[in-house]
Amino acid sequence: MPEPVEVKTTENSSKPEIGVTGRKIIYGKDGKPCRSCNSLLDFQFATAGMTKGAPVVPNVPSPKIKENQAVAAKKEKYNPYAKDIPPDVEVLGKSSWTLLHAIAATYPETPDDKKQRDMKQFLKLFGNFYPCWFCAEDFTRFMAKNEPKVETQDSLGRWLCDAHNEVNAKLGKPKFDCNLWKRRWKDGWEEED
Amino acid sequence: MPEPVEVKTTENSSKPEIGVTGRKIIYGKDGKPCRSCNSLLDFQFATAGMTKGAPVVPNVPSPKIKENQAVAAKKEKYNPYAKDIPPDVEVLGKSSWTLLHAIAATYPETPDDKKQRDMKQFLKLFGNFYPCWFCAEDFTRFMAKNEPKVETQDSLGRWLCDAHNEVNAKLGKPKFDCNLWKRRWKDGWEEED
Repeated sequence: MPEPVEVKTTENSSKPEIGVTGRKIIYGKDGKPCRSCNSLLDFQFATAGMTKGAPVVPNVPSPKIKENQAVAAKKEKYNPYAKDIPPDVEVLGKSSWTLLHAIAATYPETPDDKKQRDMKQFLKLFGNFYPCWFCAEDFTRFMAKNEPKVETQDSLGRWLCDAHNEVNAKLGKPKFDCNLWKRRWKDGWEEED
Repeated sequence: MPEPVEVKTTENSSKPEIGVTGRKIIYGKDGKPCRSCNSLLDFQFATAGMTKGAPVVPNVPSPKIKENQAVAAKKEKYNPYAKDIPPDVEVLGKSSWTLLHAIAATYPETPDDKKQRDMKQFLKLFGNFYPCWFCAEDFTRFMAKNEPKVETQDSLGRWLCDAHNEVNAKLGKPKFDCNLWKRRWKDGWEEED
């Protein structure tokens, strides 16, 4: 969505302020580069700089960054207003799962009571307003049988993973191992995974 | 999201029941093929059958349908669990706008008071839970200055279009003509557009 209005940089000047795309790097409240606030390219750039534990950030992008840069450059040429058509059930589904899982990934580890109530309400309203009516009915039915587990970030992430797997099963798609939900939707994969 | 549990077909047998992908065609409460409930391919197939006003549906897919069929076949081979990484700010933004605009496209033309309150609440919670914190703050700020117009489907669609354009402007992207929001997010484009 939008560009930052007020850019919050940290006091630690060892953290890169500008990414390889020329945009400012956005950090989370934990001081780490915010994955869902930066382009993949800038996130990788900032993370590479920080994981080396050095104040120096790489001047020469890695092959992986170069590859992503090429993808980003290609994307830039794409005009999103070139009479794109309304989303079909698959585009809508993919978009919505992306948003829901990403929301779980940034939901507090230990949410207070209000946050938990709000999440339940959000999921209920999501089920009411979802554009595909039979999908919405199915999601609402799932929630009636499986009350959303909003007690912790992990419980919410796993509950959503279960909900997604129920749909995957109906579509004949493979189920995802919910023990890995954080790798897929929050932290990314390790080289050894 | 899910497959239909209970397939609601209409009494009018002139409407195709099975799409070219082999899945059941899903219709909306208005009796028309539901765009957000079917794959693009099946939606086009069902719509083509109906707009001709004939009980016969095309046996030979049009070039456009063939083209989309090729795209669909290509998609089938894609494994969504091949260590995909968490969404960055751009993927998240695009996914979220897709969902929000599609929600506006199926919001009632004349919602009752409860529906209007629910939509306001949904947008507020969306702003609270959005994973990118600075985007969320920006969206919430926009809502504080520009109260969501939830009175009709058209007012909500235009309000969202305005919100999206505010972000487009910040990103240096072209603004979308909000008079055309229904073509982009609800009805699709006409040949003469």
